[in-house]
Amino acid sequence: MAGEFELIRRFFQEATSCRSDVLLGIGDDCALLQPLVGSALAVSSDTLVSGRHFTPDVDPEALGHKALAVNLSDLAAMGAEPAWVSLCLTLPQADEEWLAGFTRGFAGLADGCGVQLVGGDTTRGPLSVSVMVQGFVDPARALRRGAARAGDLVYVSGTLGDAGLALRCRQDPHMQRWLHPALEERLDRPLPRLGLGMRLGSFSRCAIDISDGLGADLGHVCEMSGVGALLDLERLPMSDHVRAYVEATGDWPVVLSAGDDYELVFTVPPQHAAVFDEATAAWDVPVTRVGVIEQAGGLRARAPDGGIIEEVSGGYEHFRA
Amino acid sequence: MAGEFELIRRFFQEATSCRSDVLLGIGDDCALLQPLVGSALAVSSDTLVSGRHFTPDVDPEALGHKALAVNLSDLAAMGAEPAWVSLCLTLPQADEEWLAGFTRGFAGLADGCGVQLVGGDTTRGPLSVSVMVQGFVDPARALRRGAARAGDLVYVSGTLGDAGLALRCRQDPHMQRWLHPALEERLDRPLPRLGLGMRLGSFSRCAIDISDGLGADLGHVCEMSGVGALLDLERLPMSDHVRAYVEATGDWPVVLSAGDDYELVFTVPPQHAAVFDEATAAWDVPVTRVGVIEQAGGLRARAPDGGIIEEVSGGYEHFRA
Repeated sequence: MAGEFELIRRFFQEATSCRSDVLLGIGDDCALLQPLVGSALAVSSDTLVSGRHFTPDVDPEALGHKALAVNLSDLAAMGAEPAWVSLCLTLPQADEEWLAGFTRGFAGLADGCGVQLVGGDTTRGPLSVSVMVQGFVDPARALRRGAARAGDLVYVSGTLGDAGLALRCRQDPHMQRWLHPALEERLDRPLPRLGLGMRLGSFSRCAIDISDGLGADLGHVCEMSGVGALLDLERLPMSDHVRAYVEATGDWPVVLSAGDDYELVFTVPPQHAAVFDEATAAWDVPVTRVGVIEQAGGLRARAPDGGIIEEVSGGYEHFRA
Repeated sequence: MAGEFELIRRFFQEATSCRSDVLLGIGDDCALLQPLVGSALAVSSDTLVSGRHFTPDVDPEALGHKALAVNLSDLAAMGAEPAWVSLCLTLPQADEEWLAGFTRGFAGLADGCGVQLVGGDTTRGPLSVSVMVQGFVDPARALRRGAARAGDLVYVSGTLGDAGLALRCRQDPHMQRWLHPALEERLDRPLPRLGLGMRLGSFSRCAIDISDGLGADLGHVCEMSGVGALLDLERLPMSDHVRAYVEATGDWPVVLSAGDDYELVFTVPPQHAAVFDEATAAWDVPVTRVGVIEQAGGLRARAPDGGIIEEVSGGYEHFRA
């Protein structure tokens, strides 16, 4: 079995493409990086743990992709341009085939997003992945959770509930008939909305990525902004698969409370809405207006029958009893 | 039991003191940081895993300290000034007393070093800690592993073997009589040599911190610099406790191969040695000349009897069979 340093060198040293702002990459005590002059650094980190965020038999390529994707999604939610990533990988054993798959998934996404792996650590232990990403953003254009104002319109990108429905189908044998490869792709290989996030700075001050469910994440925005929101359930964007499932079952929580789609929810002041709607027509990511920010706190939803549902339930909190 | 977000907020949001270059701290999708103009960013990350780097019953305060210390030690080895840290903490349960202790140890060291906690993640799972630190360094003064040249003098800071002897004593009941609180302090609460690292840029181009043992870490320097080294065993700096133990047992590996002291080993070109030795007399960290870089690869040692020991053994590699 190869030594730790040999492992790291073989799989990670040249895993991703090279950026000119990396003065010194993997292999020394630290990486040396040249920040973009005039920008702030946007920094985010997340850990995925076996048995909690994925099953031990997870496809390593999907895990490599997802571990990076969920972090890049935080940069997207800030409107930042991604640059560098560090990877701390804890593995039960040094399985070369597993590592090669993981690296394919991780490096494939990194290369596609212009991100270079600049450092990290490989340790033996229960399988888990901690990733830290960095990017650049003009601080005056950064999309903050606390910047929603009453009257702002609420938008989401893409479609909601795809990943959540795939997860339910995998967990419940009785739901197999609702499963579709397109849903599994959303669950296993979410695509961070980086291009959208960078464009939003011209129209929006406020965004968050949907990792815990629209209800929970828009709830964070409302709490930090000191406002509330009213969602229009009929407007929530769904794929045909999810729409058919929700219409058959009435299971709105799969759209409202299931996370893992990694879409963005963001606000646009009403005076910018017309220009924004016109601009988005040419974008490659669909965005849909789904509600409005209100003065009164809390998250409400208007049901298809016109009735108002108070206190739309939240998402997934790891230590909730 | 409190929710994840509540936990994080309570223990970490105001855990460390505030830096003016943190535009946005914990609580949004990303932290926003203002890099120092004209400097490179030095970035390093390390994971500590229960059962591998510490025992499950570890004192949480010592763990909090050490998880940050081993990362700051990498900044010290680069000559960088520390600034920001991110913390990914995986815990079997949300034990408030444990978290309070961990935070005391982590924040105590962070505050002492002028470092602000800017982000991270708290997850439920097998106990492990991933830390990522960032600091500033003039890239022309950065201390690189590959910059040793034949003829350079080799120095180490502080004393060697203290932490290693403490670890052996804890693991072997027959060694209890060699244990001393001063040794345990070195093992549990290593102090990163940040001040020394920042000063070295005026005299040295090459350093590494000793985490895997002097032999292994100086071996990395030799390998990356394409040189070798000759150590003089009689010159290796030891505390009275370690010296008494080595003289009684002949157990040189505790000095040469045990890591965890987090001292620095670095090189000084011979033409700078006189000025360097004079300068260090006024420093608060002792430094000792212990050998010389040689053209021929490999790491050799001169024993106290004058004999040369070839191929001084290496350190600790996690995946070595």
